Amino acid sequence: MVAGIGDDCAVLRLLAGRDALVTTDFTLEGIHFRHDWHPARSVGHRCLARGLSDIAAMGGEPVAAFLSLALPRGLPQGWIREFLRGLIGLAGKYGVVLAGGDTAESPAGLLADIVVLGAVPKGKAVLRSGARVGDRIFVSGGLGGSAAALAKLRAGAKAGAREYARHFYPQPRIELGRILRERGIASAMIDTSDGLSTDLAHICRESGVGAEISEALIPRASAGRPAREVELDLALHGGEDYELLFTVSAKKRVPSQLGGVRLTEIGRIVRGRTMFVRNREGRLRKLEDRGWEHFRE
Amino acid sequence: MVAGIGDDCAVLRLLAGRDALVTTDFTLEGIHFRHDWHPARSVGHRCLARGLSDIAAMGGEPVAAFLSLALPRGLPQGWIREFLRGLIGLAGKYGVVLAGGDTAESPAGLLADIVVLGAVPKGKAVLRSGARVGDRIFVSGGLGGSAAALAKLRAGAKAGAREYARHFYPQPRIELGRILRERGIASAMIDTSDGLSTDLAHICRESGVGAEISEALIPRASAGRPAREVELDLALHGGEDYELLFTVSAKKRVPSQLGGVRLTEIGRIVRGRTMFVRNREGRLRKLEDRGWEHFRE
Repeated sequence: MVAGIGDDCAVLRLLAGRDALVTTDFTLEGIHFRHDWHPARSVGHRCLARGLSDIAAMGGEPVAAFLSLALPRGLPQGWIREFLRGLIGLAGKYGVVLAGGDTAESPAGLLADIVVLGAVPKGKAVLRSGARVGDRIFVSGGLGGSAAALAKLRAGAKAGAREYARHFYPQPRIELGRILRERGIASAMIDTSDGLSTDLAHICRESGVGAEISEALIPRASAGRPAREVELDLALHGGEDYELLFTVSAKKRVPSQLGGVRLTEIGRIVRGRTMFVRNREGRLRKLEDRGWEHFRE
Repeated sequence: MVAGIGDDCAVLRLLAGRDALVTTDFTLEGIHFRHDWHPARSVGHRCLARGLSDIAAMGGEPVAAFLSLALPRGLPQGWIREFLRGLIGLAGKYGVVLAGGDTAESPAGLLADIVVLGAVPKGKAVLRSGARVGDRIFVSGGLGGSAAALAKLRAGAKAGAREYARHFYPQPRIELGRILRERGIASAMIDTSDGLSTDLAHICRESGVGAEISEALIPRASAGRPAREVELDLALHGGEDYELLFTVSAKKRVPSQLGGVRLTEIGRIVRGRTMFVRNREGRLRKLEDRGWEHFRE
């Protein structure tokens, strides 16, 4: 429940027996989007999707969002309207109330900071730190689709929202995250916002474990027209897919899809602190954390 | 209680029977501060003080803060260290945990967005909308001290942090706000972040009432060296004092100070939607909402 919008603070009442989840994410012009690459509606959608995906990665449900928005002079009203349409459209889909925020004039470029508040039953949030040696590693959907769009844009080509939907209009895995938590399937979980190698490294670091995954098992996204599988490097290191990466204890059964999303086993948690990847010839090499760096002009 | 720092979200557990309060505020270089005017430590302090003051204005207690920080290339490490020292110093004073946030590279100038999460007993948040005709209007401390510093800086003069403490190191009125809520004294409350005329207009609009205040009663801040009372216009319209402006029903007793802060009755709530100010000759004129505009270069 939300009250007090337009007051000094928003007042929120969570159901009894719930923990609150809070996440905050910047969307900065030139860092997270470019006017010549991203339609306004996509920028608004992605702005909120980043926060919703963090809630999904805890197994939580989103409750309210707060948008701080600094606009440069001369930004057309039509752009702002479309931006808000993208953001509010996604919020509506998940029943998220836009409960407040801040506005200012920006000295240079559009700046947005989105805060999403969510809820999860007390003590039940799925952390990054719960992976144990022997757990299997799963990922939802396909990887590298978002990075494929960026690769194309960087090369000076056009990338349409329909062929590269995962880049322009990513759907956060809220329902999947909730089911994985409710059924006690995921021992640790994170969303793939920075790329598989970096996000898996986060789980390993927080859990004090290593990992071993197989190239051949990684579900690569299909993107482009005609649609085809993205290259391995994009699936290993490309960010902003907003899929869920999670670990599952050896004995638990995992269906091949949940909440309408395909789930793929890609490897397992091992002793040590190192990540390895097995190539198609069966040879192991160290998997470097080549984390997603946001594009720059 | 706060857990899950360094995870996708921070996980927070409020005491049972509490509502959550959420507020978010930008601090943008060139809009809210200038490097040649504000020491780094003051910028960090003010950044958090804005959010804490919003919590105070609801009668709440702050729990956790989230800092999103975008830094331009080349900003010296020493500056950032001092900024964080100012922010964390103030957080420590009120037992606020810095529980997360986001970082990015800024395309231009330092950008910060602070989120403060607070708590208040269920249904007890003091809103802007509770003022009733006949209520008396009070303000804490003195007004115009922060604007006096800006006036001096704008004129090209120096303004020291000691002579203009309310500008450089404002102390949010957390304790006062809590006492006013606990004792059921305040019927409506807001903090004076935008200036008396604008903040009183917020209370009037949200409560559907008018107001009448007296010039002679307005507590003007002392600032400068030698310290002297600021001009009336600064007290009426200058922002960023972070005092509490509140209304009290006619019968309630209000002490002349609470929690170590002076309280001054400056007028009363009247019918209608208009704000009036009485000058020293007893004549009433309309009080324009000349809201605080942040300085621009």
